[in-house]
Amino acid sequence: MTDTLRIRSYVQDQWVDGEGEGSRLYNPSTGEVVATASTTGVDMGAALEHARRVGGASLRALTFAERGAILKGLSKVVREHRDELLELARTNGGNTAGDGSFDIDGASGTLFFYSNIGRGLGDAKILADGDALPLGKETSLCGRHVWVPRRGAAVLINAFNFPAWGFAEKMACALMAGMPIVVKPATLTATVAHRLAELFVDSGLLPAGSWTFLAGPAGDLLDHLEAQDVLAFTGSAATGRKMRSHPRVLEKGVRVSVEADSLNAAVLGPDVDVASDTWNLFVKEVTREMTQKAGQKCTATRRIFVPAGQLAEARDALAQRLAKTTVGEPGAEGVRMGPLASAAQLEDVRSGVGDLATCGQIVFGAVERVERGDGGDADAGCFLGPVLLQCDHPREAPTVHNREVFGPVATLMPYDGTADDAAELVALGEGSLVSSVYSDDKDFVRDLILGIAPYNGRVYLGSADIASEAWGPGAVLPGLVHGGPGRAGGGEELGGLRGVHHYMQRTALEGSAELIGAVLP
Amino acid sequence: MTDTLRIRSYVQDQWVDGEGEGSRLYNPSTGEVVATASTTGVDMGAALEHARRVGGASLRALTFAERGAILKGLSKVVREHRDELLELARTNGGNTAGDGSFDIDGASGTLFFYSNIGRGLGDAKILADGDALPLGKETSLCGRHVWVPRRGAAVLINAFNFPAWGFAEKMACALMAGMPIVVKPATLTATVAHRLAELFVDSGLLPAGSWTFLAGPAGDLLDHLEAQDVLAFTGSAATGRKMRSHPRVLEKGVRVSVEADSLNAAVLGPDVDVASDTWNLFVKEVTREMTQKAGQKCTATRRIFVPAGQLAEARDALAQRLAKTTVGEPGAEGVRMGPLASAAQLEDVRSGVGDLATCGQIVFGAVERVERGDGGDADAGCFLGPVLLQCDHPREAPTVHNREVFGPVATLMPYDGTADDAAELVALGEGSLVSSVYSDDKDFVRDLILGIAPYNGRVYLGSADIASEAWGPGAVLPGLVHGGPGRAGGGEELGGLRGVHHYMQRTALEGSAELIGAVLP
Repeated sequence: MTDTLRIRSYVQDQWVDGEGEGSRLYNPSTGEVVATASTTGVDMGAALEHARRVGGASLRALTFAERGAILKGLSKVVREHRDELLELARTNGGNTAGDGSFDIDGASGTLFFYSNIGRGLGDAKILADGDALPLGKETSLCGRHVWVPRRGAAVLINAFNFPAWGFAEKMACALMAGMPIVVKPATLTATVAHRLAELFVDSGLLPAGSWTFLAGPAGDLLDHLEAQDVLAFTGSAATGRKMRSHPRVLEKGVRVSVEADSLNAAVLGPDVDVASDTWNLFVKEVTREMTQKAGQKCTATRRIFVPAGQLAEARDALAQRLAKTTVGEPGAEGVRMGPLASAAQLEDVRSGVGDLATCGQIVFGAVERVERGDGGDADAGCFLGPVLLQCDHPREAPTVHNREVFGPVATLMPYDGTADDAAELVALGEGSLVSSVYSDDKDFVRDLILGIAPYNGRVYLGSADIASEAWGPGAVLPGLVHGGPGRAGGGEELGGLRGVHHYMQRTALEGSAELIGAVLP
Repeated sequence: MTDTLRIRSYVQDQWVDGEGEGSRLYNPSTGEVVATASTTGVDMGAALEHARRVGGASLRALTFAERGAILKGLSKVVREHRDELLELARTNGGNTAGDGSFDIDGASGTLFFYSNIGRGLGDAKILADGDALPLGKETSLCGRHVWVPRRGAAVLINAFNFPAWGFAEKMACALMAGMPIVVKPATLTATVAHRLAELFVDSGLLPAGSWTFLAGPAGDLLDHLEAQDVLAFTGSAATGRKMRSHPRVLEKGVRVSVEADSLNAAVLGPDVDVASDTWNLFVKEVTREMTQKAGQKCTATRRIFVPAGQLAEARDALAQRLAKTTVGEPGAEGVRMGPLASAAQLEDVRSGVGDLATCGQIVFGAVERVERGDGGDADAGCFLGPVLLQCDHPREAPTVHNREVFGPVATLMPYDGTADDAAELVALGEGSLVSSVYSDDKDFVRDLILGIAPYNGRVYLGSADIASEAWGPGAVLPGLVHGGPGRAGGGEELGGLRGVHHYMQRTALEGSAELIGAVLP
């Protein structure tokens, strides 16, 4: 353990270390310990209070343009240290270079996107919401809505799969709003976030108190939340429920945003001929969504609906492409998919495939063994190849719509070729982050959008005319909202200014136009 | 009990009666039973499912303009039966004609306001949110946000104080969005809501399944909620917490909106001279906010902050005006304030004044006795006169900032005359629906707005230039948002389209401009 990294927390504008050895962080390809982290003994109440008092004041003193300039500088810092961060993503996250780039370039890109928003907002510190509403007949009495920064701390708790982008996308919105942030990445893969914390602190760009970083368990952090704080969480639905029902959160009325389980669907339209451009896009994107980051993406496709008549051909095409997924140590030549993030994740995915198999059968891959393409030991590390299941009676299979198996796993299912039937099947997921439609038939797409939009935060339309530039449903773009109703947590992030609003308070001002003009000319 | 009214529920498009005698509804001026209500045996699950399936489909088939036309018709129904409804508000709610008008004209006005919004939206059925965001370089790939109706039922649970407006303001937004509603007024004062339910059903304006009405306890209603439902609640913070943490709500990720306790503040600016127009407005509005509906308004002023040097004069002016509050049977000649809504409310207010008195002293009124101005029996009914307390050290008195006494009660407190000091004191309420500022000093008003806006859903500016048309902070206007952060529940209602969005899902569409154009030209 001589090379083991010790990662520390940044609290009250100082680096601090917790007591004891704390948690161990592993390399999921080898099982080696790569770092340890402890937050034991860190005063969470003092950390939050410092953020609110010092960080809140320093951020609110800045204009949106100045906040944007900070984000621009931080984006540059991430880009300049890209290689170093990719290496940490490989050793601690099991990420291939492509997987790591998805996370790290996603972080720098999102920070950059929001820096432009700040520039566009210029010298203001608060935002107008809509126009003035005249209320008086003889006087200038009117109403006007404004957005002002909340006076608490934004606590950003993230999942293991995106150690960089996961907090950066929340951070961009919170700092732009004028709220100090407390960043708590999942301990499991925290070396990437920790290195970013070091780089951000060293950059000198962040105002005093605006940045707090917790390397390790959150301890009693939530017990110290106050009414003006925001708790933004990405992770499992079970943990999301615990946060929402936390006694302190309920007592103080803390604003909570949750992004949780999501059984994202892909629907192939009845108009799509085998081997057409749209068919090929469907096959390419569905297999990528299954295997990118070893399927450990909240936006990964889990349910695939295909017209019954095309099921066999779709299955063969998907299986054929999945077979090209070389599994192995993510840095090894030719490897396209690394391991799962931990032994516990591997166990959970194996168990999940078992659950799904009660509703159908595995038609590609297996969970008992893995075929490594890099010549490595099949018994070492947390490797698993892609698994495609088929379920022929999706209406009689609740598990396939409610069990999120967080790995390279999806289930193929038939529908009757109508938008109504597809929409009903998508809705059985009870709320998802994103669902995708592959079709060039405008009527079918219209009917399906109207049917599934209420159940999704985003609907992705894969069609021949945009195939050359398509991002796929898994890419979360900063200009579009990210989040979904119901099972997906009911939260909303990003989407340009929409995501900034969640860290602000909308307040109606009612009075004379002259007095309202004192804050909003 | 020969004249006792039996109020019934409207479920699955039929009037139904619960089993047994059920709950008794009283006249708070006399203690007489005026009605009974039972929901025992009503199948809440079937009621919700009918609303979702039948009501959702029938509303979504309508355009916004058609939904608006329904609201216009219902508004007319309320106006045409105003006298009858005012009489019920008197006998079951203890409302004076002015109090009842505040509720009933508020209901018809809000329905009418939203009918105009519907007309303005025209033939659309879904809403665009912002412009298209170009994403492609060579193709028409772009992003676009839309609002679509949620596919569940909107469950509207309201407090006893506004039996008409309370549900009408939620109803206007939900129906406009395209969601069927399940209206559950507080049983205590439900005769007004029940009569409206009868009138609405008889009007034939409401599409099948769009209207469900529960006369009596909610029973196991919440156990049947689904992921696309919305639960909108107005009432106590304690009940709000129970709803938020209800196992079914958490399990399904039901969207919840809460409007709860609020220690609304009024701040008198240091620039306001005694007997000036702004001073007089302050005195008039603060006393009205204390006594209207016997102080049983969520927007009523509970905390009054006055520069220390003007405290004595403000106290005298308020006391002098409060002394003119004739208390008695609300229909009796000259009466300006009726009883509290129930014996339990009276008991709670008495106990609350006791709590507040531990932080200061009563400077006007008393809780032990009431001076009735109508010659009635002082021991009959739930009468209480207005009570003004004074607390000289508000920073050392947490109770005055967190105990909402829901009656004609407020506490007068000094501050040092600076906006900073006033803002810190207002913030001790940890989130309110509305706070008011009485001042003509633009700098003071600006600083105070910026200081208190994060803690309030609305900031009301009382000044000389709009005094002739001022509504006062207690009037909730449909064009301005209603709700507040923290203790006030964190919800938001009304505010024109803003309130409609809470019953819709915002979804990002990502794809070719042509395909997105299929739903949003």
